[in-house]
Amino acid sequence: MTQSTELPPALPEGGLRVVALGGIGEIGRNMTVFEHAGRLLVVDCGVLFPEDDQPGVDLILPDFRAIEDRLDDIEAIVLTHGHEDHIGAVPFLLKLRPDVQVVGSRFTLALLAAKCREHRQTPRLVEVKEGERRSYGPFELEFFAVNHSIPDALAVAIRTAAGLVLHTGDIKLDQLPLDGRLTDLAGFSRLGDEGVDLFLVDSTNAEVPGFVVPEREIGPVLENVIRKADQRVIVACFASHVHRVQQVLDVAVQYKRKIAFVGRSMVRNMGIASDLGFLNVPDGLFVDLDVAMRMEEDEVIFVSTGSQGEPLSALSRMARGDHRQISIREGDTVILASSLIPGNENAVFNVVNGLAKLGATVVHQGNAKVHVSGHSPAGELLFLYNAVRPSNVMPVHGEWRHLRANAALAVATGVAEDHVVIAEDGVVVDLIDGKAAVSGRVVVGHVYVDGLSVGDVGESTLSDRLVLGEGGFISISVAIDQTTGRAVTAPTISGRGFSDDPKALEAVVPLVEMELARTEAEGIADTHRVAQAVRRVVGRWVAETYRRRPMIVPTVIPV
Amino acid sequence: MTQSTELPPALPEGGLRVVALGGIGEIGRNMTVFEHAGRLLVVDCGVLFPEDDQPGVDLILPDFRAIEDRLDDIEAIVLTHGHEDHIGAVPFLLKLRPDVQVVGSRFTLALLAAKCREHRQTPRLVEVKEGERRSYGPFELEFFAVNHSIPDALAVAIRTAAGLVLHTGDIKLDQLPLDGRLTDLAGFSRLGDEGVDLFLVDSTNAEVPGFVVPEREIGPVLENVIRKADQRVIVACFASHVHRVQQVLDVAVQYKRKIAFVGRSMVRNMGIASDLGFLNVPDGLFVDLDVAMRMEEDEVIFVSTGSQGEPLSALSRMARGDHRQISIREGDTVILASSLIPGNENAVFNVVNGLAKLGATVVHQGNAKVHVSGHSPAGELLFLYNAVRPSNVMPVHGEWRHLRANAALAVATGVAEDHVVIAEDGVVVDLIDGKAAVSGRVVVGHVYVDGLSVGDVGESTLSDRLVLGEGGFISISVAIDQTTGRAVTAPTISGRGFSDDPKALEAVVPLVEMELARTEAEGIADTHRVAQAVRRVVGRWVAETYRRRPMIVPTVIPV
Repeated sequence: MTQSTELPPALPEGGLRVVALGGIGEIGRNMTVFEHAGRLLVVDCGVLFPEDDQPGVDLILPDFRAIEDRLDDIEAIVLTHGHEDHIGAVPFLLKLRPDVQVVGSRFTLALLAAKCREHRQTPRLVEVKEGERRSYGPFELEFFAVNHSIPDALAVAIRTAAGLVLHTGDIKLDQLPLDGRLTDLAGFSRLGDEGVDLFLVDSTNAEVPGFVVPEREIGPVLENVIRKADQRVIVACFASHVHRVQQVLDVAVQYKRKIAFVGRSMVRNMGIASDLGFLNVPDGLFVDLDVAMRMEEDEVIFVSTGSQGEPLSALSRMARGDHRQISIREGDTVILASSLIPGNENAVFNVVNGLAKLGATVVHQGNAKVHVSGHSPAGELLFLYNAVRPSNVMPVHGEWRHLRANAALAVATGVAEDHVVIAEDGVVVDLIDGKAAVSGRVVVGHVYVDGLSVGDVGESTLSDRLVLGEGGFISISVAIDQTTGRAVTAPTISGRGFSDDPKALEAVVPLVEMELARTEAEGIADTHRVAQAVRRVVGRWVAETYRRRPMIVPTVIPV
Repeated sequence: MTQSTELPPALPEGGLRVVALGGIGEIGRNMTVFEHAGRLLVVDCGVLFPEDDQPGVDLILPDFRAIEDRLDDIEAIVLTHGHEDHIGAVPFLLKLRPDVQVVGSRFTLALLAAKCREHRQTPRLVEVKEGERRSYGPFELEFFAVNHSIPDALAVAIRTAAGLVLHTGDIKLDQLPLDGRLTDLAGFSRLGDEGVDLFLVDSTNAEVPGFVVPEREIGPVLENVIRKADQRVIVACFASHVHRVQQVLDVAVQYKRKIAFVGRSMVRNMGIASDLGFLNVPDGLFVDLDVAMRMEEDEVIFVSTGSQGEPLSALSRMARGDHRQISIREGDTVILASSLIPGNENAVFNVVNGLAKLGATVVHQGNAKVHVSGHSPAGELLFLYNAVRPSNVMPVHGEWRHLRANAALAVATGVAEDHVVIAEDGVVVDLIDGKAAVSGRVVVGHVYVDGLSVGDVGESTLSDRLVLGEGGFISISVAIDQTTGRAVTAPTISGRGFSDDPKALEAVVPLVEMELARTEAEGIADTHRVAQAVRRVVGRWVAETYRRRPMIVPTVIPV
């Protein structure tokens, strides 16, 4: 059902079109575009973090090409919550259309505003709350409270003449949320009574059976660890996980410790959370890092970034013993109160091992219950399907394994199999006469941000980086007489990333010289042909001698 | 206690020296050297697989430097079991000392012999069984049955005048092992009665609470999945996990399917296991892949390598849709009956997603109980400590987090804290008068195998590869008159792994030309100084323009 490679036909009048420019078939860079009556609505606009086969890339953006000719048709960007994979690409879209309205909850918009300030942008922000309704062109929106691993998350219902759509955003069903703000299952049930034509559902944990343990069960685990600590305590977690940090704050109060934040994003976000009342902070609890460093070791808790093993983070520096201020001592306690995002295992365990080697007691989700997920597993997803009773389902926010598992759950609750549409990025789904179906496909590629540029690093550059990263390169430079083809210098041959042995390439020099003599004898003066000949000789030699495949880079200079 | 950087003093007469040349502070390349009365005994000699910061490396060997002057003192190499991280480096040690005796169990030696044949080596093999005793010089060895994720594993006790040492090898305490061969706790208890002076203990799962579920509980899970399959079934697991494969065979018999092995190491190892009687195979159960491809889809089970997402493996090819023979269809079933080794998550999930996208039902340890570990978790380690009641403990086979956790378990059972020695690779531990203590340190570095060479790729090459892999390079080639310093050609500037944009480097050309004019004007004709000047100009430009850090490679050719 997803095999279409055709551009979709024009959307029939009265229909609703849905296409993800990111976020389906991957976890990250969520961006879904809804089209109705010639107008567009964007839900979320996030970034994806690169994998091993995308070296040197800083961020991956949704692919805006499908809408770049229709930017003026966008009525609004709706943000479900403030995580990077939902808001991180907004500044890049604002560069194309600075005046578009950005709609979201208070905390979400505060995080976005901070991000936009770094990009020197002042977006048009429209704050909404759960329970509110707003219309943007032909799209009537209604917002619902949703529980997730960040405060103030929203689901959004979209009413058009084509029918009623509900998008969960990122969601879980913690029945004892720390802030008392439950996912609005009752509201979802009301929508279900009204009749939901298309339900877009978070797939992240669809493979995981059961239910998420309430966030508040983490508090006592933290308390138990911190109670026993008589030295320094460092807690690392996501810089946006306000409720996790709140529980650390509560334990700090209980054991008369102060709190010092470490890491730029932690300081910034907790400042925002505290200013807006999302973090409950007794007067005088926070101390600056400098002050904390002068306090007794059992009088302070450091709350730090770096829970994913990011090499430049404060925690990684501590683990390597090169943090400017905090040096870990035998008997210190470090708690990684965070998930382990797949792909980060080595980095995180390097940090854990570094801390363990320095003598710290390291508590992490592998040896204590210091983390719960922010996404509904299978058991909770069944509750959602049964509350909403949708006619059509579109799993979102997941890799293929998650999408398939989520689709199976929808079918298990009674959604007809041919009304469950797995539509990866770029697959166009049209809702027409109450039936959702794939109508075509638009091109959605990876858009890489590397340093200051967007888009100039592409697959060819990445493929070169992979070759260079595996085997380095061997360069051969020679100047030739451009009329006779005679080498007027000895060839300069050197390698980088090839061998530590300074003599590693000695044996190929005479082979290159012989080849240059041959090309001259054959009267070859074309620099390109000489370069090719040299590349062939060196490539064959290195494959036979070393069984390696470095990049071979001949430069033939005509003089 | 591990901070010593001094070479150890000469070993006092009657003492026993222990030093790991690999395997402590990491999981892999296990190799422990025991010294007594001027003679050496080596236990295990394995390889380590590289991590992300060791790109292009095929294998990492133990560092033989500490014994390279004493090769003739080696009495024997004892192998505890046949996993690569215990036997993989034997051929490299045999190159240095081809006539050394290699002692191990039947299955272990069969796997080693197959490996040595690939290296065109015919080692001196000495087969031993549990319960046997052998003497090699001053080392009296006694072997004990051990249960692990490969058949025929052994623990080894080493008696010398210095005392009694017990090395577990890799161990777990499955109380219902598939082959009925229990870890010999009774034997360990007898040693404990005699008095174990030093106990070297597998730390892999020391952080994990509890006990490993018996291997045989996996059979019914496999049966349940395969029973429901009406199409093709593919089971991927480690090529040495004979008992896991046995359970697949048993289910195949039950459901009248044949078995076809896929992947070179699977075919080889299961041939060995079957020939030696470690795999129980009814006549006619095995079919060749070609035959299997002509059978009905519900008449065969494919047992394949590739459970760790290795990109060249059969399973990865199937997931990408480019396997020469097997193409996955909607409704096929794939079971990954294997662990997920940290660091392989992305690779494995890429395979799972590829298979899911093609429509296969993918069963893996994340959604079903299709794998159990081969290493004792904390609960089982306590049994071991209480059986052995050692005077001194040395945690082995683990990263720092595992070593620390294992040390804590030893202390919890009553071993005196100052008798537990965490000695990472190279740390020398002497057992003298019944007390084990660190006496110094020898250099143990990483020895990299890349293609056909050992050791020529070192940290400098790897650091270049990391730079090249992240940012590619920009090369600038120019020929200058070696007396005047005048550029006799226009500079050739090109990048690889830098940008897909052919014009990306255009703007730097005039800057380089200006710099060359400047060096000429200053009379600089030294190619090295000209190259440095060019590197500085290009490096500054690229940092400011792109905020990237490619390698800058100037080549200045004197003519």
